[in-house]
Amino acid sequence: MSIKNIKAYGTEAPDAILEQLNISRREVTSKDIEIDILYCGVCHSDLHFARNDWGFSVYPVVPGHEIVGKVIKVGEGITKFNVGELVAVGCLVDSCRECNNCKNDLEQYCPEFVGTYGGQDKHLNMQTFGGYSESIVVDEDFVLKIPKNLDLAGIAPILCAGITTWSPLQHWNVKKDSKVAVVGLGGLGHMAIKLAAALGADVTLFSRSPNKKQDALDLGANQVVISTDEKQMENVQGHFDLIIDTVPYAHDINPYVGTLKTNGTLVLVGYLGPLDPMLNSVPMILGRKTVAGSLIGGIAETQQLLDFCGKHDIISEIEIINIQDINEAYERMLKSDVHYRFVIDMKSLKD
Amino acid sequence: MSIKNIKAYGTEAPDAILEQLNISRREVTSKDIEIDILYCGVCHSDLHFARNDWGFSVYPVVPGHEIVGKVIKVGEGITKFNVGELVAVGCLVDSCRECNNCKNDLEQYCPEFVGTYGGQDKHLNMQTFGGYSESIVVDEDFVLKIPKNLDLAGIAPILCAGITTWSPLQHWNVKKDSKVAVVGLGGLGHMAIKLAAALGADVTLFSRSPNKKQDALDLGANQVVISTDEKQMENVQGHFDLIIDTVPYAHDINPYVGTLKTNGTLVLVGYLGPLDPMLNSVPMILGRKTVAGSLIGGIAETQQLLDFCGKHDIISEIEIINIQDINEAYERMLKSDVHYRFVIDMKSLKD
Repeated sequence: MSIKNIKAYGTEAPDAILEQLNISRREVTSKDIEIDILYCGVCHSDLHFARNDWGFSVYPVVPGHEIVGKVIKVGEGITKFNVGELVAVGCLVDSCRECNNCKNDLEQYCPEFVGTYGGQDKHLNMQTFGGYSESIVVDEDFVLKIPKNLDLAGIAPILCAGITTWSPLQHWNVKKDSKVAVVGLGGLGHMAIKLAAALGADVTLFSRSPNKKQDALDLGANQVVISTDEKQMENVQGHFDLIIDTVPYAHDINPYVGTLKTNGTLVLVGYLGPLDPMLNSVPMILGRKTVAGSLIGGIAETQQLLDFCGKHDIISEIEIINIQDINEAYERMLKSDVHYRFVIDMKSLKD
Repeated sequence: MSIKNIKAYGTEAPDAILEQLNISRREVTSKDIEIDILYCGVCHSDLHFARNDWGFSVYPVVPGHEIVGKVIKVGEGITKFNVGELVAVGCLVDSCRECNNCKNDLEQYCPEFVGTYGGQDKHLNMQTFGGYSESIVVDEDFVLKIPKNLDLAGIAPILCAGITTWSPLQHWNVKKDSKVAVVGLGGLGHMAIKLAAALGADVTLFSRSPNKKQDALDLGANQVVISTDEKQMENVQGHFDLIIDTVPYAHDINPYVGTLKTNGTLVLVGYLGPLDPMLNSVPMILGRKTVAGSLIGGIAETQQLLDFCGKHDIISEIEIINIQDINEAYERMLKSDVHYRFVIDMKSLKD
């Protein structure tokens, strides 16, 4: 299979900074689309993967799975997309297509899904490289249409931060007047508030920082509960249908479980690891409360979300950076010093 | 309000054995039914409560919430029950009747539900006493009809062990060919197997003891997986829609979470306390898997279960004892030395 060499930004080792490097992409096959990348969002997972925090990174790592770009070439079998069209790619670029999850539009739970970076390119038999690059070649089934009315850079984070919070809102059937709480106001949290509010839910932000209150209200929250304030927590006992917990590190979820209604669910979307301190089963049993996890969303669900965002004029709150600023951006992201998502203007790589 | 003194069996302190004592019951009000108790099942909770394991027992404690008996008196407002009729009482004898849970037939999750023992009798303004007694006076809304074709003593455990496992089978929509696993083969576990099998589910018992295999198959299980056998566990990864975990002490549930399908649920019904060792969110997130709790069941659901048991000829596997043997029965229960539930023949108290 013929390949094409392009410029990218990535890292050769867990403790190295990200620098410009060259990578190979396959040439488009009959089912592929080649996309000139215009913007790429910066996700916390990018940093985890670059630094091998999860222990399964393969180097070089080129992160980036919140991709917006323009179609520059289509394979001969492509009928749904045209050269010049604006499109998006999220966290997945392939899956087995045959398992029950794939058949049910749950490609994100396919045991063989191919991540946009750090996955295994079936054609080239090497790791996949993400959106911190000039261009990407993706099977048409994993390419998304984007609404024409939205700011292109602001769309990018919808592909991961957006779908990660949208999928549980859909799965747990949030609708008008549902009581939804969001734990943590970062990239995921701010999208969760916007999306839940657009669905008509009554939205609460749990935060430790009183100074996030005005931002949360501006994003669409109805109230902010300071999670370290016992009285405020007491006031929302048994209150929520769904809690979306976006906090990306180990934290005590027991106080939040108490704020669920009978049959309510707390869904973890940000933290992968042991629930420390230990989860107490008592309130779960006494109120049939549930703790669950959820991972991004399927392709059809992501398209549904993009269409919803177009209809409701929703984009992410972003700060645009050049690719040369990515290492500093990672440090700022670690300190939550971003409102609320960095997006790379990929023009900066091409100049 | 006039009262009536009756014989019971109970304990005056956490470290005292159970002995015969006298308690007071209210006389029937217009909505009450007085029941001559014929049989009472022995639940693990009885022992926990007698010994104040949960820290909120009020003495004297008279345990027992798996009650089968005969109506001996009805209040003037009673139309649904007649003197001489055989009836049952489970874990609840009252609730607020006004909260959302009460309105939705979920009295077990009413914050003000009145337990059959250790609750607060609203009429007498004192604690309630359970079924280890000659008779009980219960509001008609908490009295259940029993199928005429079943053995009376074998019905008793349906009122707690049965409904505790039936409610999650219903709530998580188990039906023909659902893949259901049961963790632990005791009072709850053996009912879970019988009920899931009767619903047409494909039933697996997780057990550490190979010698429980034949019993499990006889009760209706399709297979037994030895949870300490890595290869057997590997074979059931991603297999189950619902796991009912009946183990009554802290144990590692992580290996079971891995055996859930995407969207599967592990429901804790036996163990109240911190999940030790810590629950790992990784498989939960990567497979949208859920850990939940569930508590007994509502009154309507318990009636539905009794009717189902009548139709499918299901009773509990029991060993009948005299009330004078209760302290020894507790010791044997602690060693799981019972197949699978003790039921007290209350005639022994009256002689």
